[in-house]
Amino acid sequence: MVHSASILLALASSLASASDPSPLQDFCVAINDTKNGVFVNGKFCKDPNLVTPNDFFSGLNIPRNTENLAGSTVTPVNVAQISGLNTLGISLVRIDYAPSGGLNPPHTHPRAIEILVVLEGTLYVVGLIHFQFNIGKTKAVAIAGLSSQNPGVITIANAVFGSNPTINPDVLSKAFQLDQNVVKSLQKKF
Amino acid sequence: MVHSASILLALASSLASASDPSPLQDFCVAINDTKNGVFVNGKFCKDPNLVTPNDFFSGLNIPRNTENLAGSTVTPVNVAQISGLNTLGISLVRIDYAPSGGLNPPHTHPRAIEILVVLEGTLYVVGLIHFQFNIGKTKAVAIAGLSSQNPGVITIANAVFGSNPTINPDVLSKAFQLDQNVVKSLQKKF
Amino acid sequence: MVHSASILLALASSLASASDPSPLQDFCVAINDTKNGVFVNGKFCKDPNLVTPNDFFSGLNIPRNTENLAGSTVTPVNVAQISGLNTLGISLVRIDYAPSGGLNPPHTHPRAIEILVVLEGTLYVVGLIHFQFNIGKTKAVAIAGLSSQNPGVITIANAVFGSNPTINPDVLSKAFQLDQNVVKSLQKKF
Amino acid sequence: MVHSASILLALASSLASASDPSPLQDFCVAINDTKNGVFVNGKFCKDPNLVTPNDFFSGLNIPRNTENLAGSTVTPVNVAQISGLNTLGISLVRIDYAPSGGLNPPHTHPRAIEILVVLEGTLYVVGLIHFQFNIGKTKAVAIAGLSSQNPGVITIANAVFGSNPTINPDVLSKAFQLDQNVVKSLQKKF
Amino acid sequence: MVHSASILLALASSLASASDPSPLQDFCVAINDTKNGVFVNGKFCKDPNLVTPNDFFSGLNIPRNTENLAGSTVTPVNVAQISGLNTLGISLVRIDYAPSGGLNPPHTHPRAIEILVVLEGTLYVVGLIHFQFNIGKTKAVAIAGLSSQNPGVITIANAVFGSNPTINPDVLSKAFQLDQNVVKSLQKKF
Amino acid sequence: MVHSASILLALASSLASASDPSPLQDFCVAINDTKNGVFVNGKFCKDPNLVTPNDFFSGLNIPRNTENLAGSTVTPVNVAQISGLNTLGISLVRIDYAPSGGLNPPHTHPRAIEILVVLEGTLYVVGLIHFQFNIGKTKAVAIAGLSSQNPGVITIANAVFGSNPTINPDVLSKAFQLDQNVVKSLQKKF
Repeated sequence: MVHSASILLALASSLASASDPSPLQDFCVAINDTKNGVFVNGKFCKDPNLVTPNDFFSGLNIPRNTENLAGSTVTPVNVAQISGLNTLGISLVRIDYAPSGGLNPPHTHPRAIEILVVLEGTLYVVGLIHFQFNIGKTKAVAIAGLSSQNPGVITIANAVFGSNPTINPDVLSKAFQLDQNVVKSLQKKF
Repeated sequence: MVHSASILLALASSLASASDPSPLQDFCVAINDTKNGVFVNGKFCKDPNLVTPNDFFSGLNIPRNTENLAGSTVTPVNVAQISGLNTLGISLVRIDYAPSGGLNPPHTHPRAIEILVVLEGTLYVVGLIHFQFNIGKTKAVAIAGLSSQNPGVITIANAVFGSNPTINPDVLSKAFQLDQNVVKSLQKKF
Repeated sequence: MVHSASILLALASSLASASDPSPLQDFCVAINDTKNGVFVNGKFCKDPNLVTPNDFFSGLNIPRNTENLAGSTVTPVNVAQISGLNTLGISLVRIDYAPSGGLNPPHTHPRAIEILVVLEGTLYVVGLIHFQFNIGKTKAVAIAGLSSQNPGVITIANAVFGSNPTINPDVLSKAFQLDQNVVKSLQKKF
Repeated sequence: MVHSASILLALASSLASASDPSPLQDFCVAINDTKNGVFVNGKFCKDPNLVTPNDFFSGLNIPRNTENLAGSTVTPVNVAQISGLNTLGISLVRIDYAPSGGLNPPHTHPRAIEILVVLEGTLYVVGLIHFQFNIGKTKAVAIAGLSSQNPGVITIANAVFGSNPTINPDVLSKAFQLDQNVVKSLQKKF
Repeated sequence: MVHSASILLALASSLASASDPSPLQDFCVAINDTKNGVFVNGKFCKDPNLVTPNDFFSGLNIPRNTENLAGSTVTPVNVAQISGLNTLGISLVRIDYAPSGGLNPPHTHPRAIEILVVLEGTLYVVGLIHFQFNIGKTKAVAIAGLSSQNPGVITIANAVFGSNPTINPDVLSKAFQLDQNVVKSLQKKF
Repeated sequence: MVHSASILLALASSLASASDPSPLQDFCVAINDTKNGVFVNGKFCKDPNLVTPNDFFSGLNIPRNTENLAGSTVTPVNVAQISGLNTLGISLVRIDYAPSGGLNPPHTHPRAIEILVVLEGTLYVVGLIHFQFNIGKTKAVAIAGLSSQNPGVITIANAVFGSNPTINPDVLSKAFQLDQNVVKSLQKKF
């Protein structure tokens, strides 16, 4: 299905559905306190007395360069970029697509559901398979909301053929019905 | 604090923090089945065999007219507009602001946390008080993600001075330290 | 609507709906460990071996003095008063109202839903607007249960007119349809 | 541990910890629509257009008669008594205790955590075992908040010795280290 | 990594993390009430008065035949098999693997986290990639717990190459760095 | 009701229903960092760079010795045994039962719902009362899934008669309708 600018899509990905635990105070601005090698589920909070408005915003410079293999660049804005998003259970991404074939390849977000709005261009999207493909002759831009402050992303081809350590080629050959040599060649590429 | 186009803000509103219950199947496209006067928490689901791709998208026509009292128009895209958002726990709004003073007035979302990206123009926002005010000489546009498929909205001035039935003016006079006549006059306006 | 002693009200405030994350052990008595400037979502737990029955109770001395501007006193009993409430997702408040006009002014709890029982006196409450007003000639007392160990409270008039830093009067003048001078005068009072 | 009037206790029962699913609209007043033999998780909602203030309150007449075997009466106020509590995740109970030995026997709430305030009298409570025993010479009264609109209650002695169908006495004899005849006698009493 | 019988594995799949909404009554045995084309999130409940012990159990006959392309058979026991599991947020699967290469191919559960115990045989599993491969010369058997009553399953190769409608081969060719002819051939196989 | 090997039971215990908070990253392997006497809800996480596959599995050696008073041994595999289960909201137990009367006595899990599969032997289980009794002449073995990484367990007889400090015998005598001497004798046994 083809969608032009300003079409909004609910990516009811059948691959994701977590809801982050609720906040227990007005805000909990994230800090990384790794100096002691101590970690919690999510992030530690910054001392509330030291929190400033800057903890709650970030620039989203446009446009991004899309001269890469996939022809797309995903710019996340989650708890890693805006520490004030910690415990709030929501984040955004901006996606730039190169003209004529820019692809945000099949992937899933292990901790979030996604909703996507096409700001510019024409994208091809299919059903529950989660990718976007720029079929227009011009660049495309989309913004997506995600239901987690740390949604994560698993790009399927990388996870399967590019895992480290490498998966036994017998498994992938059988699972994808591909010749062992093709599997090994893919494992080198990813 | 003033924010120009492409600034992304986490509206860590201290007024909202629910997370919707998780989905229990791949999708539950909403239907209103009021013919029997029967309702559930949220919405009934459409027969999965009748679901089509159209249930998952919607146009988001731009720009919206902002010639109204506040000088702003909020275009929600939640479960009421995209029935496929049902059970997914996320939605978006587009907000258009008139030049030089367009205001999305102080409000809260009883069932969602919001994150806002300024696509165009310059907005004034303050800390945890939840409003946007266009201080630029040109129109402004923002998109916000919300962590519920049905976030709701309570515009504070309306809820307080425009409630139906009317609140006893003694209460509002005391709470807002306003003269009774001012309160009664406000209750007529809202 | 007027309610006398022993009436129980569900304050289905349209302004609140979080549920705290579930406990992950039998109890997690709160401690403030700010000596390192380190914070978590909620509170750190006390060493379970040092927990005593005293961590789970607190006196609720009655009656409270209500000689203040609003004519009411709210005595919270949440995780700040009973550290054993940490992670348990529930708390209480006691509210004392002065005779003839004691007011618990319009407010909301960002992380809790409230249920209120009138122990003594006669209170005026309206629909979804969340306040109580003592219309009786004697003092009134109520107890309310809240669905969070740290429900928070936003008193609307304070948040709007008394915020620090001050909100631009243009915004409040437009939002509340009040003269700029009235707004500035209110901002001085709160 | 002995607690007099106005002591507030967090009953951090190690037997309970659910949080009800969040509401998905401002309110969902419960109805029982059993005419078709159809049920949902929780309750169906009343048509929002037919909801009235009466759906949100209930009298809590005092005092209750405590002339029964245990010497106590529990008056619940949950979704069965106030249908407006549906989806709100909170409820209350009032407990009246007979003088000199009124007992609310050991029990647990499968879907709620409880916090209890003693309004009148002197109660004996121990650690994580969940009961209250009136050790004073006068009646006692308590109010408790519960973190569910339908907390449920399992009175332990009834569940073990009074279950229907009856549990094989071999099991209870072994589990409680009681003579089989004692077990059979208890099974007759409960 | 190779695991022999009686090894228990936490499959901390980075692809799944939902928790089902909590139950709101003691049990809600599922029924399918599709005669009116009406559906809810999850399942309707059976009339509690008609519930029998049979609603809570099911046979798990062993062993299953594994003479199929993958050399494995997954026997789910979730709300579709035991209607009493409705609202309980947990289910199991039994997996039988053919000797010397039986494969439960890479997949994910969109609504559950999985924990797996090897009852018999020797399985090969790698890191966060979610599959099991029987490297032993004898059959293997495993049981897995899943944190949802309806966990769902997405077999990756099927979802990518066997989707209906078919995904544009340009997308898959680019995403998997495979020749277009290989992609088209795979799309025929799946 | 009697169940033989390979019967799977949903123990829809009316005594349990929590769902653990969702994970906020791919994994959070538990560590106990008690050197500073600091604790959190659940467990601290291990430095992700130090996580190894060993953090995600554990042996489950069989059979266990059942020569004890109850004639049963419960072998838990939760976050205490597999630290990688932290934040994942699921765990397992293996239960071995002695022939002819091995009993896993009445108990409840305060933070989990349980589903049980009988691998070997014949067990007697009744309705919502949560125990298993080996009525066969041979040993029995079961595996159960639990919907928490730290489900907890309250063995009812121990909690009631073996609590420390001891419960006032007046309370137990009244609650269980047992002679005071029987209560005191039970309190010595447990």
